[in-house]
Amino acid sequence: MRLRELGEFGLIARIERAARRHRRGPTVVLGIGDDAALLRPRAGEDVALSTDALVEGVHFRFRTESARHVGRRALAAALSDLAAMGARPLGFTFALAAPPDLPARAAQGVVAGLLFEAARHACPLVGGNVSRARETSLTLAVVGAVARGRALTRAGARAGDRLVVTGVLGAMALAVARAERGQGPLRRVPVPRLRAGRALARLPGIGGCIDVSDGLEADAHHLLAGTDLAPEIDAARLPRPRGFGAACARLGLDPGQLALAGGEDYELLFTVRHNGPSAALLARRLGVAVSDVGRVVQSSRARARSPAGFRHF
Amino acid sequence: MRLRELGEFGLIARIERAARRHRRGPTVVLGIGDDAALLRPRAGEDVALSTDALVEGVHFRFRTESARHVGRRALAAALSDLAAMGARPLGFTFALAAPPDLPARAAQGVVAGLLFEAARHACPLVGGNVSRARETSLTLAVVGAVARGRALTRAGARAGDRLVVTGVLGAMALAVARAERGQGPLRRVPVPRLRAGRALARLPGIGGCIDVSDGLEADAHHLLAGTDLAPEIDAARLPRPRGFGAACARLGLDPGQLALAGGEDYELLFTVRHNGPSAALLARRLGVAVSDVGRVVQSSRARARSPAGFRHF
Repeated sequence: MRLRELGEFGLIARIERAARRHRRGPTVVLGIGDDAALLRPRAGEDVALSTDALVEGVHFRFRTESARHVGRRALAAALSDLAAMGARPLGFTFALAAPPDLPARAAQGVVAGLLFEAARHACPLVGGNVSRARETSLTLAVVGAVARGRALTRAGARAGDRLVVTGVLGAMALAVARAERGQGPLRRVPVPRLRAGRALARLPGIGGCIDVSDGLEADAHHLLAGTDLAPEIDAARLPRPRGFGAACARLGLDPGQLALAGGEDYELLFTVRHNGPSAALLARRLGVAVSDVGRVVQSSRARARSPAGFRHF
Repeated sequence: MRLRELGEFGLIARIERAARRHRRGPTVVLGIGDDAALLRPRAGEDVALSTDALVEGVHFRFRTESARHVGRRALAAALSDLAAMGARPLGFTFALAAPPDLPARAAQGVVAGLLFEAARHACPLVGGNVSRARETSLTLAVVGAVARGRALTRAGARAGDRLVVTGVLGAMALAVARAERGQGPLRRVPVPRLRAGRALARLPGIGGCIDVSDGLEADAHHLLAGTDLAPEIDAARLPRPRGFGAACARLGLDPGQLALAGGEDYELLFTVRHNGPSAALLARRLGVAVSDVGRVVQSSRARARSPAGFRHF
């Protein structure tokens, strides 16, 4: 069955039924189905809001990835923005644009993937929009909450800060390269570092924070954009997945380049004062591996390199 | 200049500059440019969240409408969902997807239109996303705040309630028909009934509320969906714009049909208890004309008519 046969209201009814099978949790006062959803932050919390979009042929291809995986990845990426603020999720909406000849099971697969990640990260689906379009795209809005004055932001880095990153880098770039070479569908889903972000927001000695969506080097520059500071990255220290060098070699890829410039790992990149917590202490508090990967320097001293992330236009 | 020449980060820089020229107001703790925005509701307020999308060729055509007008209409429509909840705006984000050969001034025109309406309704732009795509589309997420337990919802209508609508109906359908027949570009921008919605949320004797996006008849059915109630609409009482009959006649259009089924007027449709406030009192409190247009009946007694709104698939 195509969307054309299912119909707009048929699709919406299926989405609402699927959403209602999931537990809403205490953050949702009014869920999907009204003009707007109602979410309830705790007293003294600010509300974090972010939007993110995935377009067919640009961010995903149904040829190399299941519809469910597209949905999972989309919400994981959007939640990563809340993680980078130190916020906890309250709920999200999605807008699905799709051609009328899209198989209904593809649209429902995307929704199933969204709902899977939603349950995993306690971020209920609370609304949406469906529209006809020439290509399929998915735009999410995520809302979170963070205690006033506690949010992590991109501001706050100082010269002399250490640059620290969670997890490993290059894993998604490698997975995408494999899928694009026909070695099976893309299966990797990044983990938004929500727990780590919340822990980080409570620690002293932390500077700025960003999530790594465009690649470590590009996002290190984004983190310091508009300041007279620049990142000095020690490429030899970038944390790589186990067996990464051999796997890259088999595909003829440069592992150093993938770790430095590969996007969509959604790890947190943050700065720590020179006398701030050690990597070992950070790992314990954040519940995830962390690595020192460089430091923040005055711009005139930084290596002159432009960021290498993906450009849309 | 095309988006291809301006570049993704060039476009983002221009959007950020334009957004920063506007006053942010007290609801914004952290605006555009970070991983997420931070908004501040008042103590005891719930947060309302809604998303809305406009796709080129479906919801708008650059041939019949300026880019600035597309932006204005998009935010007005999204804010109408907050109005229908009785919420005040806190801020919004937008995701723009566009082909690389779109003239940069079209993208900037859309943003200028968004910012114009944002200033008008005190709803600051606090974030966004730009992406390459085959066709232009615009997806907004609006966030508002409403005192706990005070939100208007679609629930709450009872048999015997009066059906009441703000403003006039059919004006946008007429304007669209004119533009599509080459009688000049589309210039009408609907007014989201934010003030009326907030006033309505404070009044006793009000049942359910919805905004009229798909057309009065369709949305009257949406308002009562999932209940054993149905709308009984008195078509002769639908409020029409001045000179509407003559204008429709010149175009060979049926004015009654346009008022009943024409979409995108974004008036508020709500139910009032039979002993609730009169239309005259409502008009004074809401600051806008209101009209009784029918009543809510048990479903078995309702006329069997299916709603006639626009369908995407």
